[in-house]
Amino acid sequence: MEFELIDAIRMRVNIRRDDVALGVGDDAAVLDVPAGRQLVACADTLVAGVHFPLDTAPEDLGWKSLAVNLSDLAAMGAEPAWALLALTLPEPDAFLVAAFAEGFAELARAHDVALVGGDTTQGPLSITVTAFGVVPVGGALRRGGARAGDAVFVTGTLGDAAGALRQLQDGVAPAERLRAKLSRPEPRIAAGLALRGIASACIDVSDGLLADLGHACVASGVGAELDADALPMSSALTAAFDRATCRDLALAGGDDYELCFTAPAARQTEVAAALAQAGCSATRIGRIVAGSGVRALDAAGNPIAPGRAGWEHFAT
Amino acid sequence: MEFELIDAIRMRVNIRRDDVALGVGDDAAVLDVPAGRQLVACADTLVAGVHFPLDTAPEDLGWKSLAVNLSDLAAMGAEPAWALLALTLPEPDAFLVAAFAEGFAELARAHDVALVGGDTTQGPLSITVTAFGVVPVGGALRRGGARAGDAVFVTGTLGDAAGALRQLQDGVAPAERLRAKLSRPEPRIAAGLALRGIASACIDVSDGLLADLGHACVASGVGAELDADALPMSSALTAAFDRATCRDLALAGGDDYELCFTAPAARQTEVAAALAQAGCSATRIGRIVAGSGVRALDAAGNPIAPGRAGWEHFAT
Repeated sequence: MEFELIDAIRMRVNIRRDDVALGVGDDAAVLDVPAGRQLVACADTLVAGVHFPLDTAPEDLGWKSLAVNLSDLAAMGAEPAWALLALTLPEPDAFLVAAFAEGFAELARAHDVALVGGDTTQGPLSITVTAFGVVPVGGALRRGGARAGDAVFVTGTLGDAAGALRQLQDGVAPAERLRAKLSRPEPRIAAGLALRGIASACIDVSDGLLADLGHACVASGVGAELDADALPMSSALTAAFDRATCRDLALAGGDDYELCFTAPAARQTEVAAALAQAGCSATRIGRIVAGSGVRALDAAGNPIAPGRAGWEHFAT
Repeated sequence: MEFELIDAIRMRVNIRRDDVALGVGDDAAVLDVPAGRQLVACADTLVAGVHFPLDTAPEDLGWKSLAVNLSDLAAMGAEPAWALLALTLPEPDAFLVAAFAEGFAELARAHDVALVGGDTTQGPLSITVTAFGVVPVGGALRRGGARAGDAVFVTGTLGDAAGALRQLQDGVAPAERLRAKLSRPEPRIAAGLALRGIASACIDVSDGLLADLGHACVASGVGAELDADALPMSSALTAAFDRATCRDLALAGGDDYELCFTAPAARQTEVAAALAQAGCSATRIGRIVAGSGVRALDAAGNPIAPGRAGWEHFAT
């Protein structure tokens, strides 16, 4: 079964790359990493009922299973190249597979990612994608480079995906913008490439801003202060929730797949120019400080207390 | 949760390699593929209740989840280097994780494989490992190179794992050799490396000899004839089952993780010498013919009919 399914998806993806010496159909793929480049690799799993509702459209699932991995490559400043797809399905379902493949293919084409292999198995629905990219030697963005005095930035807007999820859980139909952010996140590949040589640390926001910036702070041996009023939010989010809820969703909601990064404060103009070139907005939301931990401050500089929103992400 | 778990496993694996520029703990791993080498990559999933019984010892599961992937690298003639582990668990279970890690680590150490990243998620038990290896440029063994007149060989013995599974299903305790082959298959890495430049085609036997050799025949545009009486079987297998059952298990039983390969018949001495050097036996079991399909023949040269054994593997 496995080759037919993976090959059917590969044909739909239909990306040919000269650096694929051997793709789907053998025991493994054979790939050419160009001279002067390092390989960047990651694998993330999405499980039905845990990472996505059981009634998620298979097209969206195909897109998202690749997107969450490309987002990790973006956070490294890597250029995507190839992917392996391990798809576990309760039963062979040609309709589901075709729809899944369509969503996967749409995003793969947008980033020139060749599907080079994988596995299909029978079992409870889950998807593990391995994504591969390349960076110039020594050029990868890391989590551990933030220094006290650096400014903290984030791309795009925060809280949209968590807002959509909250509304779905409350039985409310989310605005299109929020829904799209939840089901079809756009990995910030161009932004990651633009930040090479500029950002001192970078991470993607998958578990929530506080949690993910917290990971970068631990890796860097520093703390951070965020200006809660500076958090970038979409008008769709602010139209759907009160101010405190918006703030909580932006601070602690997961699934945003924006990039949170740090850079010397003096390089703010350079940051803005590089990201504008990449077609992406970035907002300065705080600063790196000596010490540890991430604190969100109100306009008066007082720490804000967690609301009812997704602060449980803290614990994961 | 994910870093602590993956990092706990990494620490147990405790393989340091100079070609790991950045391992567990960032958004992705950064790896150095040496000049003059191609990257070889594959991903296989094991699902609880499908690929292994629910009461499988977690140590064995850790071993096997890596072994099935290293077996794919072996079939490519690749030297293993790194792995990503995506582990889905019903609940955080430190005992299970420690035991899983121990089995994974034991095999990783044997082949100098560094665990460089992954993901842990909550859900029905399943494991997807991505394995990475390297080959000299153009040196990978492929499925598609078999030519009419080539001899067909297989390493080790066939049918042991399927025999153990059959006994477990029948409520019989398998002999230790059979059980070990099912729960702790030894990927034929050294044999794969030794076959570079010698084998015309190579595949690992995971679905069963007939099925897997069939894949290689399709890829090569040829057929194959097997001498049923030449199939290598362990004394543990022949002691446990009657002759016809042994033959069926050897032909169609899965999970052997031996290498089936082809080479010009004139190179048989060279094959034997290379594999002896690699500490591995190999048996000549048939020949590649023009046409298509794989036929097993009895001593008189007549096609043998399938028995009650695992010929269902044919259909997968």
